[in-house]
Amino acid sequence: MQLIVIDGGFEIRHNETLLFAHTAAQPAFFVGHGEEKMEIYRGNFDIEDYLESRVALTHARIDGDKIHLSAAAGQPEMLTATLHIDGDDFKFAFEAHDASLNRCWIRLPAQKKEHIWGCGEQMSYFDLRGRNFPLWTSEPGVGRDKSTEITFKADSMKAGGDYYHTNYPQPTFVSSRKYSAHIETTAYADFDFRHNNFHELQVWAIPAELQIKTGATYLDLVEKLSAQFGRQPKLPEWVYNGAILGLKGGEVNTFTRMENALNHGIKVSGVWSEDWCGLRVTSFGARLFWDWDWKHHQDRYPNLPEKIKELNERGIEFLGYVNPYLCNDGQLFPVAKEKGYLALDKDGNVALVDFGEFDCGIVDFTNPEASKWFQDVVIRENMLNMGIKGWMADFGEYLPTENVYLSNGVDAKLMHNAWPTLWAKCNAEAVEANGQTGDALFFMRAGYTGVQRYCPLLWAGDQSVDFTRHDGLVTVISGALSSGMLGNAYHHSDIGGYTSLFGNRRTKELFDRWVEMAAFTPVMRTHEGNRPGENFQFDQDGATLAHFARMTRVYTHLVPYLKSLVEEASAKGYPVQRAMMLHFEHDPETYANQEQYLYGADMLVAPVHKPGVDEWTTYLPAGTDWVHAWTGQKITGGQRITLPAPIGQPPVFYRADSAWKELFAGLTSL
Amino acid sequence: MQLIVIDGGFEIRHNETLLFAHTAAQPAFFVGHGEEKMEIYRGNFDIEDYLESRVALTHARIDGDKIHLSAAAGQPEMLTATLHIDGDDFKFAFEAHDASLNRCWIRLPAQKKEHIWGCGEQMSYFDLRGRNFPLWTSEPGVGRDKSTEITFKADSMKAGGDYYHTNYPQPTFVSSRKYSAHIETTAYADFDFRHNNFHELQVWAIPAELQIKTGATYLDLVEKLSAQFGRQPKLPEWVYNGAILGLKGGEVNTFTRMENALNHGIKVSGVWSEDWCGLRVTSFGARLFWDWDWKHHQDRYPNLPEKIKELNERGIEFLGYVNPYLCNDGQLFPVAKEKGYLALDKDGNVALVDFGEFDCGIVDFTNPEASKWFQDVVIRENMLNMGIKGWMADFGEYLPTENVYLSNGVDAKLMHNAWPTLWAKCNAEAVEANGQTGDALFFMRAGYTGVQRYCPLLWAGDQSVDFTRHDGLVTVISGALSSGMLGNAYHHSDIGGYTSLFGNRRTKELFDRWVEMAAFTPVMRTHEGNRPGENFQFDQDGATLAHFARMTRVYTHLVPYLKSLVEEASAKGYPVQRAMMLHFEHDPETYANQEQYLYGADMLVAPVHKPGVDEWTTYLPAGTDWVHAWTGQKITGGQRITLPAPIGQPPVFYRADSAWKELFAGLTSL
Repeated sequence: MQLIVIDGGFEIRHNETLLFAHTAAQPAFFVGHGEEKMEIYRGNFDIEDYLESRVALTHARIDGDKIHLSAAAGQPEMLTATLHIDGDDFKFAFEAHDASLNRCWIRLPAQKKEHIWGCGEQMSYFDLRGRNFPLWTSEPGVGRDKSTEITFKADSMKAGGDYYHTNYPQPTFVSSRKYSAHIETTAYADFDFRHNNFHELQVWAIPAELQIKTGATYLDLVEKLSAQFGRQPKLPEWVYNGAILGLKGGEVNTFTRMENALNHGIKVSGVWSEDWCGLRVTSFGARLFWDWDWKHHQDRYPNLPEKIKELNERGIEFLGYVNPYLCNDGQLFPVAKEKGYLALDKDGNVALVDFGEFDCGIVDFTNPEASKWFQDVVIRENMLNMGIKGWMADFGEYLPTENVYLSNGVDAKLMHNAWPTLWAKCNAEAVEANGQTGDALFFMRAGYTGVQRYCPLLWAGDQSVDFTRHDGLVTVISGALSSGMLGNAYHHSDIGGYTSLFGNRRTKELFDRWVEMAAFTPVMRTHEGNRPGENFQFDQDGATLAHFARMTRVYTHLVPYLKSLVEEASAKGYPVQRAMMLHFEHDPETYANQEQYLYGADMLVAPVHKPGVDEWTTYLPAGTDWVHAWTGQKITGGQRITLPAPIGQPPVFYRADSAWKELFAGLTSL
Repeated sequence: MQLIVIDGGFEIRHNETLLFAHTAAQPAFFVGHGEEKMEIYRGNFDIEDYLESRVALTHARIDGDKIHLSAAAGQPEMLTATLHIDGDDFKFAFEAHDASLNRCWIRLPAQKKEHIWGCGEQMSYFDLRGRNFPLWTSEPGVGRDKSTEITFKADSMKAGGDYYHTNYPQPTFVSSRKYSAHIETTAYADFDFRHNNFHELQVWAIPAELQIKTGATYLDLVEKLSAQFGRQPKLPEWVYNGAILGLKGGEVNTFTRMENALNHGIKVSGVWSEDWCGLRVTSFGARLFWDWDWKHHQDRYPNLPEKIKELNERGIEFLGYVNPYLCNDGQLFPVAKEKGYLALDKDGNVALVDFGEFDCGIVDFTNPEASKWFQDVVIRENMLNMGIKGWMADFGEYLPTENVYLSNGVDAKLMHNAWPTLWAKCNAEAVEANGQTGDALFFMRAGYTGVQRYCPLLWAGDQSVDFTRHDGLVTVISGALSSGMLGNAYHHSDIGGYTSLFGNRRTKELFDRWVEMAAFTPVMRTHEGNRPGENFQFDQDGATLAHFARMTRVYTHLVPYLKSLVEEASAKGYPVQRAMMLHFEHDPETYANQEQYLYGADMLVAPVHKPGVDEWTTYLPAGTDWVHAWTGQKITGGQRITLPAPIGQPPVFYRADSAWKELFAGLTSL
């Protein structure tokens, strides 16, 4: 790894690989000034930029480890890049010399046939080459495909999305040129992989650092990134007992249905009831009461503490729900307001966010005392200490960018992307303070750089209850693969999807396909969806109850293997669900495939993600022999193979020479 | 008018009005480099820019009439602006010193409450303040409102539009600060009127000139602009005889229907048959045969020359259709190809444009010989000399930007916007060569700077057959008003609209409302629409035949007044249909109104442009008394008034003190 001064600039090379190049004719640094317009509506953003200037910093003066950059020779220095080389990695730390600069573009050398992966949890594309990816945490949007009718309809409610919208963006990627790049910033960014000869990383601020790491293998890069961003605690033991059932509707309904599931042989590790904290009725329907306190809202679950104990004695945990807002008609709001723990508006009043017929204050996590208070009062006292063993830690994407003032004095536009990680940290610290790390399990959809360290389990957000390309079942795979590249080892999704809108309804087939995928993920968890009454539920059909029961047996059967993957994640940061290219670098067919994944190194899963099919074509990576999990048929890798794939026989294969082959062979008898 | 050197820059003021300002802190000039992507599909463009640099030219060194501009003191000069002051007007001529520069932005001082008009024929907005307007001739697109279902559906066929899409853009506008601005360029441009303190005029080239004119009144500005861009010949006498009937379907159908119209009292000045040149049957339906020669396609109108003579003896003219393409299976294509009169592709073959199951060559109007040949062979020999007295000169917006090479060696991207004017010139020169200027009348939808000099009559393009805000009847008014500001005196539209798609059908009511508007325009002309059989036609209903007949009587009754407007247009360039603000500068209510127009100085027309109404509210400008044309009711200006407006009584008013009041009073007896 060295900096080489060349005519009119410099290069950084690692062995034969050109990692960075700057010359007067092909500058790598641009700075400028823009004025953005950002409009938020319930977590969906409309963002426009008016770019006033963009100046190429063509002149570089190199002075030891400092590179002094200006528009031209003799012009004032605009940016200093300080080079730090650390073994096979390097970074630039940046310092701007003009406070008005708020745009920065950095170019990295690119090759036309390069592949790019990462940028957080990307739901539409695993290989990012050929597109640009704005990086801004938000609702993913319904549809996420501007050419579809459903996105058009959602857009009319300001709720439509596009291919790059995600709850969890991150300005970090891995290149097939065996390096990773990360920009240390929380500003809005847009990584553009459309150009033939360069990647251009745009940031709406002067970023702190550009970090480049190299690795002999992609797994090395994952290991390095996961070490940097933080590794998750191991999964709790109780999770391995079966599926978490998403059931709500009050004590009688929830537990009657749980008993029915148990009676049908479904293995149950937990019951997850979002409505543990009470309901609020609005014209849109029932919403939860965002005061996070069962004591004041006991009507739904009048005997909850006793019920939790009773469940625990039967080996079943109870899970709840929380988010980082406090409704202004709850008990906690006035307390937080009095203590100064809520974000303020320009007049010094509490900034209120409209959630549709109720308003909420924003707990100001930039104030460590506010975070501590929320941890103590809500998460520890109201949840963990009552026996709640896990929860959906929802939201994180909604920090408004206008008229919100935070304790740390930083512009909300710069804190917006930071919020998911602050929210994850709040949850993780509460769990740790209770001594329950690796025991209590919360799951989040929102994320950003560093969420890896705090969030023990990602959840893929609100898929539509369908098989669509940009919104349905298949997007979960891309989400798992891309987030896994950046050190998020644990991923799961709402079995059956969540969003039912504009006449879109979950079918029995969709649920059946989703549950058979979920058996090959670290955590199985169902969700009733946003309109339970109009959508298929697992217990309304005997065949599905039996199918679900069998899939929980598949899941628990594989626990010894899954535990080995958890050990691996803990030691090296490898994700449980992995892109095929991580283990098959030599096979170019694996580089852009986002319909299949490796479940650990030894098992290949190709979920059926289209309706009305009973066979499926799987690509088997080259270099090993594979065994079809349901028939035992042995197949040489390096080919596409079409096999029957009725409900209950999802396309799953394992390596013929796996150390776990006997365990895997047992799948046929379940 | 003078240039004033101030600290760090200069200003140009006219009397008290600041017309231009440049300082180091608030520069007026920016240059840069971008790489555009332009995709064309049947006249619809998808355009994206990748902006690589945008540098403020903060440093101005003034040396006599030359302003030497650079990024900073001591930096090389990038642009020279040479100032020419001419009485109350001025212009900058630009010279770039770096051939790689292909983006330029010029800022003009703005006020928040300013109004802006022009930019060609704008169909959605007359007052342009608060929006940006890309200026690129194209299909207007179906729907032109991205929030509507019809635009969404059209977009799925790449046929949707947006508010700024127009056949006739022009980088010229008039400001309520009593100046006009024009940029002399044919490059893609985008005029941005969204900023509070400046207008920003973006051009994808270094433009030749920025021209600023001032006027004591808005009419002065219209007069100056029309003198610059050219005035149209007077309307032919025959036009005043009544309506031009758009009829096709062969000799029997066309003339039987014409006789029926005459028998119902409709005054007819001409019959316009697009299919004079023969048909081609495709899977989309019947298309015209683009060989522009009746001799080889006599099947539709076997006796056309005799028929034209017969019509002429009865005081009726015959009109046809032509466009600037030659189909490659016609008689003329091989001739033009042999002579080298067709645009070529990169391999030196004739560049073919796909029009849907047939391909055409592009007559290369940058070659004066090619234009002369087309004039002689097609327009003079095949059309004028056979007695065709007028035609739709269609298209002009379709010059592809990729893989088309022209005789003059200029990049097709720079010739694209120039094409409509070249096409108009071709038509006008042919007419002139035949000695028929002011006698033969062609009409165009496409336009650009200078089309005023050549095109005797604009036609508003392909409205949808409905009352919609961005696509229907009302858009014709905005089109007339905005184009009229730039010296286009004559405007008209397809009575009843044209585009019927996605179940959209012309109703009797729509036709009735459209025809009663058309009676108060310079030319009345019907169109059967793109799907005649599925849409209402004027002769399928007795009441409409009578209504149409009466409206042709209204039109012919007003001919003496109309002729006075034609004289005025000829002398001063005032449009026949005028924005109210041209005569009511003192009345701010008139500045943004695009639903009403003055028909000359003395008559006010407020077309009913919504369905299902029988009364209408009109704003009567302040400072004069008005007379309601159908009841004689006298009303003081400066108020909104709601009156009955059944079919046949469109809201029309005239000045109580008009010299034409007796003629106008005669309308009640028609």
